[in-house]
Amino acid sequence: MPSSTEGQTITCKAAVAWKAKEPLVIQDVQVAPPEAGEVRVKVTHTSLCHTDLFFWENEGCFPRILGHEAAGIVESVGEEVTDLEEGDHVVLLFNGECGRCKQCKSEKTNLCAKLKVDASRSTMRIDEKCRFTTKGGQPIHHFLNVSSFCEYTVVEAGCAAKIDPSTPLNRACLFACGVPTGIGAVRNVAKVEKGSSVVIFGLGSVGFAVAEGARIAEAKQIIGIDVNPKKFDIAKDFGVTDFINPRDLSKPIEDVVKEMTNGGADYCFECVGNVDLVLAAFESCHEGWGRTVLLGVEVRPVTLNMHPMKLFDGKEIKGSTFGDYKGKSHIPNLISLYKDKSLDVDKFVTHELAFDKINEAFKLLMEGKSLRTVLHLNDL
Amino acid sequence: MPSSTEGQTITCKAAVAWKAKEPLVIQDVQVAPPEAGEVRVKVTHTSLCHTDLFFWENEGCFPRILGHEAAGIVESVGEEVTDLEEGDHVVLLFNGECGRCKQCKSEKTNLCAKLKVDASRSTMRIDEKCRFTTKGGQPIHHFLNVSSFCEYTVVEAGCAAKIDPSTPLNRACLFACGVPTGIGAVRNVAKVEKGSSVVIFGLGSVGFAVAEGARIAEAKQIIGIDVNPKKFDIAKDFGVTDFINPRDLSKPIEDVVKEMTNGGADYCFECVGNVDLVLAAFESCHEGWGRTVLLGVEVRPVTLNMHPMKLFDGKEIKGSTFGDYKGKSHIPNLISLYKDKSLDVDKFVTHELAFDKINEAFKLLMEGKSLRTVLHLNDL
Ligand SMILES: [Zn+2]
Ligand SMILES: [Zn+2]
Repeated sequence: MPSSTEGQTITCKAAVAWKAKEPLVIQDVQVAPPEAGEVRVKVTHTSLCHTDLFFWENEGCFPRILGHEAAGIVESVGEEVTDLEEGDHVVLLFNGECGRCKQCKSEKTNLCAKLKVDASRSTMRIDEKCRFTTKGGQPIHHFLNVSSFCEYTVVEAGCAAKIDPSTPLNRACLFACGVPTGIGAVRNVAKVEKGSSVVIFGLGSVGFAVAEGARIAEAKQIIGIDVNPKKFDIAKDFGVTDFINPRDLSKPIEDVVKEMTNGGADYCFECVGNVDLVLAAFESCHEGWGRTVLLGVEVRPVTLNMHPMKLFDGKEIKGSTFGDYKGKSHIPNLISLYKDKSLDVDKFVTHELAFDKINEAFKLLMEGKSLRTVLHLNDL
Repeated sequence: MPSSTEGQTITCKAAVAWKAKEPLVIQDVQVAPPEAGEVRVKVTHTSLCHTDLFFWENEGCFPRILGHEAAGIVESVGEEVTDLEEGDHVVLLFNGECGRCKQCKSEKTNLCAKLKVDASRSTMRIDEKCRFTTKGGQPIHHFLNVSSFCEYTVVEAGCAAKIDPSTPLNRACLFACGVPTGIGAVRNVAKVEKGSSVVIFGLGSVGFAVAEGARIAEAKQIIGIDVNPKKFDIAKDFGVTDFINPRDLSKPIEDVVKEMTNGGADYCFECVGNVDLVLAAFESCHEGWGRTVLLGVEVRPVTLNMHPMKLFDGKEIKGSTFGDYKGKSHIPNLISLYKDKSLDVDKFVTHELAFDKINEAFKLLMEGKSLRTVLHLNDL
C-alpha cells in the first residue's frame, strides 16, 4: 500500500539556516516528491557535528537546510529506484554510493565518482533544483547529500543505506558520520593491531570514535591530545590511557610522543584539521612503519611544509573520508557490531533533545559540552 | 684454511676521489683487517649509479672511495661474525640489515635502525675510523656502507648478503642498488596488479627496473616520461608502451597522463628526485586508489607544495628505499628470479669495462649513454 503522501508535496517543519551565525528558524517548508533515482525520507533522528557548525558559522549558500548525520524511514521512492521501498529504515549518507561507477565497483575506495561528499553542491543532481521551498515558493538549498534538519528530506537513493529495522533509529543516526569516520580510520585505513600505540590529535566525537576503534583493536597505549583539559575525564571512558595538553608543553608534541612511545607511535590520527598538527602527527610516528591518518578537514589555504624526503623514513600519511566505508555496502555490518555489543556507541550520546531545541544543541557543541546530541524529529 | 691475508693489511688498487669533479685516481691503498662485526671483501665487480656521480660532483668528504653497487667474495671476517665466512659470495648493501634491532625484527620495514643508508657517515661505526689509508697513512673515507671502487673493502657483516655462489658475480652486483630499488617499488610497495596502468617519471636504470617489474606484474600500460628522446628506443625493450616527453607538451603532464589512462594512472613512480615531478606524479594518479611511489632523491631544500586535503582523494604517496627489500633476507630470493629467467637483468648492462676505465664509465653515465657499466676488479 503506497504512502498516503506519495507523489504529493509534503508540508513539514524544518530548521532553516537563513544567515551565517543567526539561530536556525523552525518553520514550515514544502518538500517536493522524489525525482527519478531519489527517495524521500521521514527523518526520525539527527545528530549534529562540527561540519554543520562550520557551514552555519561561515558565509555561504543560504537559505539552507543543514544536517547530515541522520536516520529515518523511506516515505516514497522515485522512478528507477530498485533497492529501496517505502517503510525501509535507512541511515543517510553524506558520502554516497551509486554502486555503478568505476570507483564504486572497485574494492579500493569508498569515493563514489558521482555521490562522494561535495560541500559545494546545494541542489539535486538530476535537475540542479532544490526539493525544499518555503511556503512562498522560495527554494531552500540542500547540504552534503542529506539535509536532515527537516522532518522530511529528499536524497539520492545512493545516499540512503538500508538497515535492519530492529536497530533503534536514535542510535542508527550515529552511523552516518563521526562514528564510522573514526572506527573505520582505525580498522580500514590504519589497520591497528593488538599491542599497538595510538595517538589521537583532537578529542571530539571523531577522536573518541578512533579511541573506541583502538580499544576494540586492543591497542596497548592510546594517547589523547587536546587543549581542553575537561576532555581528559571523558577520555578515560573511551579507553584513552595517556593525555597530552599541548598548552602544558615546553617542547614539540612529537618529542613528547616519542618519549612516551619508545621512539614513536605506531599510528597517529589527526582529527582536528590543522596542518601543523598534521605535521606533528607525522613526526610523532615511528620510523619504518608509523602511519598517520588524516580525518580533520583543513579549510585554510595552506600547504604541507614538509620535505619530500621525509616520506623515505618508512612512514605513511593518508587521508580518509567516512572511515573508508562504502555507506550502503558496509554500514549495515558496522551496525551489527553495535548490536552484538562489541562496539559501544551509547557513550557518544551526551544529550537527546526535541528537534525544536536545535539551537541549544548547536550551543552545546560549540562550547565543547556535548559529544553527540541526538535530536528527535516528527514528534514536535 | 684461513686466507693467507687474514689479519694482515692488504695493499691493492683503488679509484680514489680526491676532489669534486676531478678524475678518480687509480692508486695503491692499504686496507686494514676487519674489526669486530665486520668483514673484508674482495670486490670482483662494481657498477656505478647516479648517487656515486652526485657525491663525486659535489663538495663533501674527500678523499673518499665511492661505489656502492657491488659483489665479491669474503676474504676474512672479524670477531663476532657468525653468518659469513671466507669464500662466501656476497652482494654488498648500502642499506644494511643488522638483523637484531627492533626495525630489522619488524616485517614492516627494511630500514635497519643501525645500518640503514646514511650518506653522512664516512667511517666505520665501531671506532669511527677508516679502514682505508694511503701508503703514507692518510685515511681515505668510506661511502654508503660499501666503498666498492677498491679491490678490497671492509663492511659491516650486516652490509653483505650471502648469495648462491653459482650466480655470476658480474650480474650479482646489479642486485645491490638500482634493480632491487625499481623492482621492489613495484612488487613490495605499490603492489602493481595485472592489467594496471603504470607511469614512470625518469628513464634511468631505476626507471627501467620499475618497467621490468611492471612487465613481470603484467601491467597493461607502462608510460615512460623523460626529456631525453633517445631513452624511448631503449624503453621499448623494457616493455614501455607509451612515451611522454615533457618538453613536447603544451599542458601539464598530469593532464596528458589522465587522458591516456582514462582518468588517472593506477601507479606512478618518481625516479628523478624532483619535487615538481613528485607533485605531477601524485596528480597523475587516479582518484580513489592511485599510488605514487618515490624513488628519486630530492637534494634541494624544498617542500611539498600540496594542500593536506589533497590526501583525501584516496591517493597514496610513499617513499621507498631499496625497494623495501631487506638486503640479507630478501636479495637472495630476488636473485633466484633472475636465475630462473623470470627477471631479466642482462639488458641493464650496456657496458663492461676493466676497473681502470672507471673514469670512462663515469662519463658514459653522465652523458646518458649507459644504463649500467659493470667494472671488473682484481684483474688489472
Ligand atoms: Zn559510485
Ligand atoms: Zn637492524
